[in-house]
Amino acid sequence: MNRQELVNLIKERKSYLCVGLDTDINKIPKHLLSHADPVFAFNKAIIDATKDIAVAYKINTAFYECLGIRGWESLQRTIEYIPKNVFTIADAKRGDIGNTSTYYAKTFFETYAFDSVTVAPYMGSDSVQPFLAFSEKWAIVLGLTSNEGSNDFQLQPAGDGLLYEQVMKKCASWGTPDNMMFVVGATQGESIANIRKLLPDHFFLVPGVGAQGGSLKEISEKGLNKDGGLLVNASRAIIFAGSDERFAEDARAVALQYQAEMGLYLNGVIQ
Amino acid sequence: MNRQELVNLIKERKSYLCVGLDTDINKIPKHLLSHADPVFAFNKAIIDATKDIAVAYKINTAFYECLGIRGWESLQRTIEYIPKNVFTIADAKRGDIGNTSTYYAKTFFETYAFDSVTVAPYMGSDSVQPFLAFSEKWAIVLGLTSNEGSNDFQLQPAGDGLLYEQVMKKCASWGTPDNMMFVVGATQGESIANIRKLLPDHFFLVPGVGAQGGSLKEISEKGLNKDGGLLVNASRAIIFAGSDERFAEDARAVALQYQAEMGLYLNGVIQ
Repeated sequence: MNRQELVNLIKERKSYLCVGLDTDINKIPKHLLSHADPVFAFNKAIIDATKDIAVAYKINTAFYECLGIRGWESLQRTIEYIPKNVFTIADAKRGDIGNTSTYYAKTFFETYAFDSVTVAPYMGSDSVQPFLAFSEKWAIVLGLTSNEGSNDFQLQPAGDGLLYEQVMKKCASWGTPDNMMFVVGATQGESIANIRKLLPDHFFLVPGVGAQGGSLKEISEKGLNKDGGLLVNASRAIIFAGSDERFAEDARAVALQYQAEMGLYLNGVIQ
Repeated sequence: MNRQELVNLIKERKSYLCVGLDTDINKIPKHLLSHADPVFAFNKAIIDATKDIAVAYKINTAFYECLGIRGWESLQRTIEYIPKNVFTIADAKRGDIGNTSTYYAKTFFETYAFDSVTVAPYMGSDSVQPFLAFSEKWAIVLGLTSNEGSNDFQLQPAGDGLLYEQVMKKCASWGTPDNMMFVVGATQGESIANIRKLLPDHFFLVPGVGAQGGSLKEISEKGLNKDGGLLVNASRAIIFAGSDERFAEDARAVALQYQAEMGLYLNGVIQ
């Protein structure tokens, strides 16, 4: 999916909601466990309940990988089931020497046909650039993450600023706002305005609202730009909103609340 | 595998050779392509030819992932086939928020029973620590990598030194030399003595000899310690030494050369 299509989708739906399919098989409603593929049965119901509200789905690959081969089967069924007009993210945090990164890019862009994949920047240019070589595909590079560990390196002094600033500036120079986004945690309230100033045009994938405690209001007021420029992810808060037969309706109800709130913030900002 | 077992293996074999199973299906001998699982057929022959020489096997997951589900089947057959007395490394460069990193650790330590997994440090403590919570399992954290992109961030000023120094010092404080190793590229000749001084006891996983041009002599002279302390990886130089029916014998011949050279460097250093 290209940038214009994504921007149009945000305008149409008045939503920049990304639903995170962090589908922990130990947390899904018990009645699904009799299905041949419980993880896919769960995802299918969540997708059906939210596919007119969300502009993106993010699949956290760890929850699939840990189930072995049947987990990858669930992942494949899920990515094939997501409507093609919604943006898809493989949250896989890959990155290696160039030769290897090319294989990771092929994995997520060709083998599974995701629109984007999250990428770890520590290994530098040749670990990131292979993800930028695919038409209408995106690298979503870790900038300033939502977790406590972001204090260990990202928020430490580096060069003439902080490490995350160096990382975001340098990585941005390898791509464009049409093929690169950044992960910016919703819990990083004070830094978000600074990051938007640093990179006025890029999309940010924002985890950390909901279970991790970040504020949708704050990230929206500081982070939205004229194209939207944000994909705010909620995982557990939506997909595990309910725990019985009505889980999909419960998920939809929470997704609708996010959409309604996002509509207010978009009003007058998006052009 | 615990540290003492690894050290004993190095002493027994007079080798600190890690064979990298970067099994690119496009590069394996053509006669294998008629096998039901060509990647495993290749790996099996390489393992049979080197299992008395190597002290470790490293599986680069990208080459398996890109084949989709059948790639994970090849990976599973391979890890199950490697003798239990040889150290195994999932070269997967994982790392995410704590909740997710726990699932990655379960993937490689429980679902696939690797001894170790490579871990990207950018997200900090809670992204690394879950890998340290498994008995006789190891996190191998990226320190100073072998690729050109290591100049972009790792070798840049940070705090009172360079970023890789901060990363290695801080990460080392979260674990011990019994459950943490570091990736140190063989191409980083000038920095290796400094790194050994910084971390006298840790094992280093060293890629970059062979195809990437690093010197086994230099990394050995500067990096070996009384326990060995190095696992030097060669992938393409060994596994693709030959390209016809004799590929496994060719691989063995190159592995024997490495072992012979390593025996010289170990002499008088290991205790």
